Amino acid sequence: MNKVKGLQSKDLLGLRDTPVEDINLILDTAAGMKEVLARPVPKVPALLGKSVCLLFFEPSTRTRTSFETAAKMLSANTTNVALAASSTTKGETLIDTVKNLEVMGNHAFVIRHNLSGASHLVAKNVKASVINAGDGADEHPTQGLLDIYTMREKKGNLKGKKIVIVGDIAHSRVARSNIWGLTKLGARVSVVGPSTLMPKEIEKMGVKVSHDVDEEIKDADFINILRIQLERMGKGLLPSLEEYHMLFGIDAKRLEKCKKDVVVMHPGPMNRGVEISSEVADGPFNVILDQVQNGVAVRMAILFLLLSGKSTAEE
Amino acid sequence: MNKVKGLQSKDLLGLRDTPVEDINLILDTAAGMKEVLARPVPKVPALLGKSVCLLFFEPSTRTRTSFETAAKMLSANTTNVALAASSTTKGETLIDTVKNLEVMGNHAFVIRHNLSGASHLVAKNVKASVINAGDGADEHPTQGLLDIYTMREKKGNLKGKKIVIVGDIAHSRVARSNIWGLTKLGARVSVVGPSTLMPKEIEKMGVKVSHDVDEEIKDADFINILRIQLERMGKGLLPSLEEYHMLFGIDAKRLEKCKKDVVVMHPGPMNRGVEISSEVADGPFNVILDQVQNGVAVRMAILFLLLSGKSTAEE
Amino acid sequence: MNKVKGLQSKDLLGLRDTPVEDINLILDTAAGMKEVLARPVPKVPALLGKSVCLLFFEPSTRTRTSFETAAKMLSANTTNVALAASSTTKGETLIDTVKNLEVMGNHAFVIRHNLSGASHLVAKNVKASVINAGDGADEHPTQGLLDIYTMREKKGNLKGKKIVIVGDIAHSRVARSNIWGLTKLGARVSVVGPSTLMPKEIEKMGVKVSHDVDEEIKDADFINILRIQLERMGKGLLPSLEEYHMLFGIDAKRLEKCKKDVVVMHPGPMNRGVEISSEVADGPFNVILDQVQNGVAVRMAILFLLLSGKSTAEE
Repeated sequence: MNKVKGLQSKDLLGLRDTPVEDINLILDTAAGMKEVLARPVPKVPALLGKSVCLLFFEPSTRTRTSFETAAKMLSANTTNVALAASSTTKGETLIDTVKNLEVMGNHAFVIRHNLSGASHLVAKNVKASVINAGDGADEHPTQGLLDIYTMREKKGNLKGKKIVIVGDIAHSRVARSNIWGLTKLGARVSVVGPSTLMPKEIEKMGVKVSHDVDEEIKDADFINILRIQLERMGKGLLPSLEEYHMLFGIDAKRLEKCKKDVVVMHPGPMNRGVEISSEVADGPFNVILDQVQNGVAVRMAILFLLLSGKSTAEE
Repeated sequence: MNKVKGLQSKDLLGLRDTPVEDINLILDTAAGMKEVLARPVPKVPALLGKSVCLLFFEPSTRTRTSFETAAKMLSANTTNVALAASSTTKGETLIDTVKNLEVMGNHAFVIRHNLSGASHLVAKNVKASVINAGDGADEHPTQGLLDIYTMREKKGNLKGKKIVIVGDIAHSRVARSNIWGLTKLGARVSVVGPSTLMPKEIEKMGVKVSHDVDEEIKDADFINILRIQLERMGKGLLPSLEEYHMLFGIDAKRLEKCKKDVVVMHPGPMNRGVEISSEVADGPFNVILDQVQNGVAVRMAILFLLLSGKSTAEE
Repeated sequence: MNKVKGLQSKDLLGLRDTPVEDINLILDTAAGMKEVLARPVPKVPALLGKSVCLLFFEPSTRTRTSFETAAKMLSANTTNVALAASSTTKGETLIDTVKNLEVMGNHAFVIRHNLSGASHLVAKNVKASVINAGDGADEHPTQGLLDIYTMREKKGNLKGKKIVIVGDIAHSRVARSNIWGLTKLGARVSVVGPSTLMPKEIEKMGVKVSHDVDEEIKDADFINILRIQLERMGKGLLPSLEEYHMLFGIDAKRLEKCKKDVVVMHPGPMNRGVEISSEVADGPFNVILDQVQNGVAVRMAILFLLLSGKSTAEE
């Protein structure tokens, strides 16, 4: 058992390397944060005096805003730094940039970068905590955790539950973080998608691979639908949008053959009419807005667990 | 009489649909806010725990900054989200974007969009309050209200007062909000401009149309000068800037024939030497900086009236 | 002696016009601010109710973030306004833009602009305090002050100390602010660089000019290495990067012939391998991250000294 109620690492870089106890600690802490958010004044002074830097090398509205809100609800300062990945700052190296921002007083960095491993590189070079907000096609652990939190909220313990992830598995950091987290919690994960968008040897991650979405979702507890990146089409990796929708799009007709209590998820932003029909996106089975709302609570939990113990003096 | 001191709508989308009692309530509340702004510490905890999202699909310095300042002076959290109208977020629909931001904890959206009606569309789809910060050529109600507030501050009751609006009436959301608001308060409104920039059937809004600025401003109490969008020139809607200045530009010579206490207004940013001469822009008759200053008070009033009653629990 | 503990000007535009007593007052105040930053909650209510506008016409991560952090640690409100210098706001003049932002309640403007003298122009036209965060090739006084603060921290009184500034002196506002400040404090300043990057009559500023870096740094107490703007190369002002590094780049070999306690500085961002080798950038002699950290304390001191006395009522 963990005597100190804290995470075992100073960073949250991916669910691959996060022990299952830490995953559970984050989920349990998030439940408390959700109660905070339901108060008339949804703000606590837990991180007063702490500074969080949101360092985004790719544009993001949803994830950045969610982290910023989470930090503010804990009374932390936030600084937004948006940079072009090609140039960092005037040719400065990524590490120099972050070290500079660290000595200015930042205790945590939330980093999104187009290169896999960018947040790992930074984490090794600073004392501050680093949270990976998406790096290349590697991981997006806070999305994975908010998905898992939402699943647990809807159906309790995930042991033995079946989750089907549908879409462009090869390029999806959301899929990877879901798979690492869910398999650690004992869930059964299947991935479904066009063979051109299925990574080689994905079975080694402990998942079942299928190309028949109808067959696969029949007994699913959760269907997690990935966003199709429309720019993949130009590269010959995707058929037409109509064909994709016909083969893999989740619509009301497809859901008819599923379990009565199947839960439909999507990390957003949705391409309505492509990977998900509007009927489903706005229908009774989806928990898409719950996911977004839980995202703030999960990110509050992570920031709190990483930063609340630290004082400037101890560092 | 209004027992509950609040606005009749959860939103402020335009002055066309705002009852005159609500206009007066906003103006009266703004006077109190102006007193707050004159204090050594011009900040009150009225909206502590409330979050305001500034969602701008068109670039804006002045209006965005004014709203942000207003929200902060009331102790609300603010989040800036700047998006390109063409793409919203990665192809996500406007409504999905706003619903996501709503469940993250935002209680109000201040929206600027290049399409008329965008804020109406959003307002129908969320429980949060929506404030229109300019939608296409439709309305810009907070600019209308700050203009009216400034007029009332300078000359009291506006009943029977004559306001002349000069410029590109057809493309001006400022003109529209001025007209709806001022006519409700009993003012007499004239619009003056080139016939190419005068909307058809504008008389139906209850205004007088003229093309002779000198004749029209002679007995005006207020002259509200609109900004000329220089990009209209390429479309053949405008003569040369010199010709426009000669025909419609307000300069010191033109003002000589006006009432001694005429008040000159401009919503900014000004094209000095085009629709207004520098002599007038910096002269004794103008109240242009008062307008800007009053804008913060008026926006504080609106945010306060829309949000102060609401608790998260009640929603 | 100064009875009122404040600066003699309402603005900080450059070190050329800042009296030596004011420089010392800022440095002494910064030492106190550094203590504040070392506290577990590094925040004081000194500027509660004051608003600082960060008005940047050139992109900046480091300087903008440093000022924003400094303002927040003093509990001031901050507003970020990033504008393109070519257009200001929709053609509005710089002065109109700032006057508008002033009446919205801003007490100070931190301005970076590509034109020399921009902050002087603004300062003359507003009552608010103006802090020059870099104007063209003129001055960058807060960088000069943080460099001087760091030197004083490392070696005490600077009287008689030798500082060698190496690089593109002609285009460097950092060099200019260093020279004005250091000479006032009695330090001996040498400038070294290619003759194409050496301004004419620079000796009149009271510095020694040299083109032999090895000779000049032998007895230096401090070497302040300027960033090479790679875009100068296209204009024939610079030899190849390799040649520049060979002639003027500071590497470990060059440092061997220096005083044992020589201190190496760089305002950042660094071009590793060009004006500074990585060995030196990460080695024992450099104080580059101290400079960045001290920057926050120095900027806090300046904001505090300019704004803490003022009440809205007095203005």
